[in-house]
Amino acid sequence: MSDTPTASAPTSLTDDEVAALDAHWRASNYLAVGQIYLMDNPLLTRPLVPEDIKPRLLGHWGTSPGLNLVHTHLNRVIKRRSRSALCVWGPGHGGPAVLANSWLEGSYSDTYPDVGRDAAGMGRLFQQFSFPGGVPSHVAPETPGSIHEGGELGYSLAHAYGAAFDHPDLLVACVVGDGEAETGPLAASWHANKFLDPVHDGAVLPILHLNGYKIANPTVLARIPEEELDRLLRGYGHDPLFVTGDDPAAVHRALAAAMDTALDRVDAHQRAAREDGVTERPPWPMIVLRTPKGWTGPEEVDGLPVENTWRSHQVPLSGVRDNPEHLRQLEAWLRSYRPEELFDGEGRPTPQVLACVPEGEARLGSTPYANGGRLLRDLPLPDLANHAVPVDRPGTALHEPTKVLGGLLESVMAATAGRRDFRVVGPDETASNRLDALYHATGKAWQAGTLPTDEHLAHDGRVMEVLSEHLCQGWLEGYLLTGRHGLFSSYEAFAHIVDSMVNQHIKWLRTSRRLPWRRPIASLNYLLTSHVWRQDHNGFSHQDPGFVDHILNKSPEVVRVYLPPDANTLLSAADHALRSRDYVNVIVAGKQPTFDWLTLDEARAHCARGAGVWPWAGTEDGTREPDVVLACAGDVPTQETLAAADLLRRHLPELAVRVVNIVDIARLMPDTEHPHGMPDSEYDALFTRERPVVFAYHGYPWLIHRLAYRRAGHAHLHVRGYKEEGTTTTPFDMVVRNDLDRYRLVMDVIDRVPGLGVRAVALRQEMADARTRHHAWIREHGTDLPEVAEWTWGG
Amino acid sequence: MSDTPTASAPTSLTDDEVAALDAHWRASNYLAVGQIYLMDNPLLTRPLVPEDIKPRLLGHWGTSPGLNLVHTHLNRVIKRRSRSALCVWGPGHGGPAVLANSWLEGSYSDTYPDVGRDAAGMGRLFQQFSFPGGVPSHVAPETPGSIHEGGELGYSLAHAYGAAFDHPDLLVACVVGDGEAETGPLAASWHANKFLDPVHDGAVLPILHLNGYKIANPTVLARIPEEELDRLLRGYGHDPLFVTGDDPAAVHRALAAAMDTALDRVDAHQRAAREDGVTERPPWPMIVLRTPKGWTGPEEVDGLPVENTWRSHQVPLSGVRDNPEHLRQLEAWLRSYRPEELFDGEGRPTPQVLACVPEGEARLGSTPYANGGRLLRDLPLPDLANHAVPVDRPGTALHEPTKVLGGLLESVMAATAGRRDFRVVGPDETASNRLDALYHATGKAWQAGTLPTDEHLAHDGRVMEVLSEHLCQGWLEGYLLTGRHGLFSSYEAFAHIVDSMVNQHIKWLRTSRRLPWRRPIASLNYLLTSHVWRQDHNGFSHQDPGFVDHILNKSPEVVRVYLPPDANTLLSAADHALRSRDYVNVIVAGKQPTFDWLTLDEARAHCARGAGVWPWAGTEDGTREPDVVLACAGDVPTQETLAAADLLRRHLPELAVRVVNIVDIARLMPDTEHPHGMPDSEYDALFTRERPVVFAYHGYPWLIHRLAYRRAGHAHLHVRGYKEEGTTTTPFDMVVRNDLDRYRLVMDVIDRVPGLGVRAVALRQEMADARTRHHAWIREHGTDLPEVAEWTWGG
Repeated sequence: MSDTPTASAPTSLTDDEVAALDAHWRASNYLAVGQIYLMDNPLLTRPLVPEDIKPRLLGHWGTSPGLNLVHTHLNRVIKRRSRSALCVWGPGHGGPAVLANSWLEGSYSDTYPDVGRDAAGMGRLFQQFSFPGGVPSHVAPETPGSIHEGGELGYSLAHAYGAAFDHPDLLVACVVGDGEAETGPLAASWHANKFLDPVHDGAVLPILHLNGYKIANPTVLARIPEEELDRLLRGYGHDPLFVTGDDPAAVHRALAAAMDTALDRVDAHQRAAREDGVTERPPWPMIVLRTPKGWTGPEEVDGLPVENTWRSHQVPLSGVRDNPEHLRQLEAWLRSYRPEELFDGEGRPTPQVLACVPEGEARLGSTPYANGGRLLRDLPLPDLANHAVPVDRPGTALHEPTKVLGGLLESVMAATAGRRDFRVVGPDETASNRLDALYHATGKAWQAGTLPTDEHLAHDGRVMEVLSEHLCQGWLEGYLLTGRHGLFSSYEAFAHIVDSMVNQHIKWLRTSRRLPWRRPIASLNYLLTSHVWRQDHNGFSHQDPGFVDHILNKSPEVVRVYLPPDANTLLSAADHALRSRDYVNVIVAGKQPTFDWLTLDEARAHCARGAGVWPWAGTEDGTREPDVVLACAGDVPTQETLAAADLLRRHLPELAVRVVNIVDIARLMPDTEHPHGMPDSEYDALFTRERPVVFAYHGYPWLIHRLAYRRAGHAHLHVRGYKEEGTTTTPFDMVVRNDLDRYRLVMDVIDRVPGLGVRAVALRQEMADARTRHHAWIREHGTDLPEVAEWTWGG
Repeated sequence: MSDTPTASAPTSLTDDEVAALDAHWRASNYLAVGQIYLMDNPLLTRPLVPEDIKPRLLGHWGTSPGLNLVHTHLNRVIKRRSRSALCVWGPGHGGPAVLANSWLEGSYSDTYPDVGRDAAGMGRLFQQFSFPGGVPSHVAPETPGSIHEGGELGYSLAHAYGAAFDHPDLLVACVVGDGEAETGPLAASWHANKFLDPVHDGAVLPILHLNGYKIANPTVLARIPEEELDRLLRGYGHDPLFVTGDDPAAVHRALAAAMDTALDRVDAHQRAAREDGVTERPPWPMIVLRTPKGWTGPEEVDGLPVENTWRSHQVPLSGVRDNPEHLRQLEAWLRSYRPEELFDGEGRPTPQVLACVPEGEARLGSTPYANGGRLLRDLPLPDLANHAVPVDRPGTALHEPTKVLGGLLESVMAATAGRRDFRVVGPDETASNRLDALYHATGKAWQAGTLPTDEHLAHDGRVMEVLSEHLCQGWLEGYLLTGRHGLFSSYEAFAHIVDSMVNQHIKWLRTSRRLPWRRPIASLNYLLTSHVWRQDHNGFSHQDPGFVDHILNKSPEVVRVYLPPDANTLLSAADHALRSRDYVNVIVAGKQPTFDWLTLDEARAHCARGAGVWPWAGTEDGTREPDVVLACAGDVPTQETLAAADLLRRHLPELAVRVVNIVDIARLMPDTEHPHGMPDSEYDALFTRERPVVFAYHGYPWLIHRLAYRRAGHAHLHVRGYKEEGTTTTPFDMVVRNDLDRYRLVMDVIDRVPGLGVRAVALRQEMADARTRHHAWIREHGTDLPEVAEWTWGG
């Protein structure tokens, strides 16, 4: 035991209780080792032979005994205290441990009846692990009780907080590995306690597991003085309880005492807040568990120390099939758990092993919180007509689309005031992104200090603002995975901060969708605003439309991208996203005043189609094919396209122009590649097979080629978009720098439609002159040309 | 002043010294406000009129007075102590402050002679700020003395450490905003002191600036009790000195005292380590500066408090041109700095203002450390022949490519032992990625505790391992930007963790390249290994080849991507990358045993071309056009392609097959789009214009279409690659699941070449049968088909 602050010991386990906990721990250790190594002979009913061993040894032993220990002791307190609990296993590579515990408690067999809680089932559990056609080596969607894969480290604690928000009766334990603790997202997550409301939210119990090593190195937190670590954790606002040791019985006693102390303190803090109205942020307890990496595994292999070193990280004995000494060591290791005491003749765990295991949905592998779809209710969404903007004529009035969306979100927030199953997260940008109507319905979650000048801060707020996209993403993922709804609003460029996190969430959803027992959860909805074209003021570093490209590389079953061109289409897209399940929806929409193009009914119809002709914007008369198609996706490109169409109509009235707007960008893909893709016939009808298409796109132009390259008309497709030209400048200069401006689009049309004659030549020169005029004007005035600033459709 | 630990005060400023510091601070504040607002009348020689005001008001005032204060006081200590210093300005949106100081000290006029240190120059300084054709609103490459843009928050402290490594005489001050401090990367960066060697590295002086607010919210660190903050910072291993106040004279005295105390302690720690051989990690000093946001700005605007609230974040008075009261307030604000005392009649700063300013390269805006190319020396690269593997016949022997590269890196590391200008960073994966030969030449940097079982840890190690891709990236960026060399090795999938960081670095390089005074720096080199095809053991979460897609969206002047297919091509690509300047080079290469295809000479020639026919692999006889082209990029796709070519040669000898391998993926682009792109004539000669091309690509297949869509032969291009199908399985199953396997490639050829006859039909069936056989085999044995495992080229 450590000589630094230690749990006072309200728990005095009897020797029998210790023995029972130890039996459960030994059983789970045995099962973890068995999964890594054994193809056959699961109960060691005969001496091991090479044929019992898997041909490829895959898996992570090092973290497993620690996870098994925590699971064992969580079982105890869950059962004893009738606590509703969920555990997030940060070191998710310790899949063998979590699977072992699920099998022991029976949740595994409940979920997968072909893997029974008997010798045959144990054999199957072992054989399937990390085996082709079997189960992944990590905690995964396939693992009962899991909401967190843990393959990419850093997000466990954020997920745990997300799960705890608005689940007042839930205890979310979270094992944080000391490797993971070095990551940025995890380091930031400790401060999440400033956002957890003791009244409306559940409790998070972080268990920092210092086993001392990563893959090949010691860890920082295990190698700083314990006094320094204690200060750090108290500085994070926690009340740490240290449990240190390598003697199992002593550690069982100390960990049981620490868990009881921690949960007593949690209960006290919750009672104080809920019953006594205490509003000070409590020092939430946490546990620091310092036990050896690879504990109970081989001490030495081939003359090198293994237990309690980084060498135990994966498979401590790697040559078991060919090396008789390794095989002998493995057998001794397995037998050291005394399996004959743990499992009966039929391979069933003994009553002593199961003494600590809770029942039914109290089991960590059976909790409905870890299968959030079971808890999910449809959102009470308002009638969009209450929030839509009136549109008498397209392109004459302006609205801020995200502000209009703010009204819808306010309504959802108000309607969920009692249910508390909707949150909006964002990195300090909710107001900047014009969603501040939300504050009429709720506040911003905040448990740190306040001052009289503060606005909208509230202990029970359901808008979450912290300057960390990682926390926003992690919280929202945890919230959704446990059965609730939400939206993440972000500056478009900085969504890349969570590229790798959303990767993992998409992979989770893609796999979950293929598991019948996983119920659909609410989609993860992004609103990307303050986008590339309107970061003229912040400059180049804030200009990046590539999150869409990143998303569209991922599983088409899961990803959806919408680029609504105005306020009403944004409302319709958001409504659709908030109703959807198991998707990642990305909506890109501006916050600056934008022309209204479509009435609500038109917007709904347009969003339902995802892409369509705007007949009023072109020269459609139903009789002739267009000479050119002007396509557009995104609010600013739509405006420039319409302005170009306007110029063409005025100056080249004989030119047949079609305007096509795309909201749902995946429509451009073949229907064989994406569920929203359109068949060739539909694509050809919209874009023609042979006419030039001048496409103004919100992001990187080559994305459109990547989506449409199979189409018959692809050779005639010319795309303009963002090509990494930017600085601090004006909005119109941004489009000019990237050749997306109305003048350039008209020039593109003239360059591509043959036989337009002298009027077109003159118009082309006029357009080039307008661009020159623009350059001179902004350098003198710092503003956009009056003719650009004042333009309206048909005005 | 705070009642918590405060700097002991070795410095007693005279009143004159305080007055002089205050004059410098007021001058910089005046210049910051002027930049945000004024088009004309810079010295207020007449009352302000609306025409003096910029038409668009852009910029960030809130952080500026704090940055000005820090700059003023850094000037003082730099001058007084003759210290070589660099400052990283975390709140980079405070561009007006850093520009103001550069102008005051003269480094601005040295860099941009058209902006003189006089009234005309001041007018130009004001007018150009955030103005089209002028300078960005953030600290940017254009800003003298900067290595950090600060637009995307989170990386300041990692950059500061990177700059300090191996610069023993350098002091790197780093202002950390309390907004930025909420981000994950910044939270992790505090622990970088466990990696800083007091002997060989310089010092980092973090200055945590608590001005209390972000865009619209209070900050976490400003709203926790100071005692808790003190614990947190001590827990991070720092020795914090608190300076709090809103009375300028008192704050000047306290900050001067804190800076002197901090630097005295830095000197003492360095002396102890360097002269007395002390090896304990010292508690490095840092400063916590708590001053009001928008300090000295308008207290109230339109009846709402502004100074010391979030409302001062950007432009406190927003209606100055149209609102006479705002105009009046602005004039009063500007005059409150008493410009007539600060600037003489010609607009030159007075001697009092300049009293604290150091001279020459000691000025923060002139330090060569911030223009790293000035310090850069070519790396001593070895003769590749010393490291190459012998290749008698292609495709028969196997090597681990990254292990071979490890030899080259070891050689570079050894050759730089004295110069110390090369580091290798990686998240705990250097050995896992088979680069462990490096440890023959250096250790792993480590200043935390050690145990007897530890290996390769060293105070002065130049391999950096921490489980944070953010820290690895930030350190390396800081190291390169200050004139050194390095390599980042990462698991391929988790490179996405730094997507947004590399965005910012690429933007920095793209802009720097256009500034003649910025000297080229060493490229940022990535080795992406443990790649998608060999994450069969870790499973789906570790499988993502999309970093290449992300990189290729960015400025073509900067980005380069290489996919060497074997050990010798990897050596050649790495050699090229380590010699290059101002690029981001991404090299994707496996660590598992891979066939050697090319001798070193062949590898060099192939890498120089970037793409070429492998005549020995096809049926080339110089007389006939190929019936089909098999193209490949990446090590695993190359192996599958060669195996497919082998099958075709044996079973359909009459088929004319060409094999093309691509190392430099940008070669596929037109030469108009990327400097490495090839002209159509060359592309057509390689791939033909009309023959089917079956392309096996390492990553997402549509990337190849996006690169090649303009080519004549594009309609005949069929690409196989990763399509998000994966789990824990075998290596060959990974390629089968994604239809990239040899059998599928042969089927693709047969499906695309017309008129092949009955033998082809039979072969196609044989291939389909082989895939079926594979599925059955792995489910039974858990390994790959013997015929696959044992295949060699021509064997």
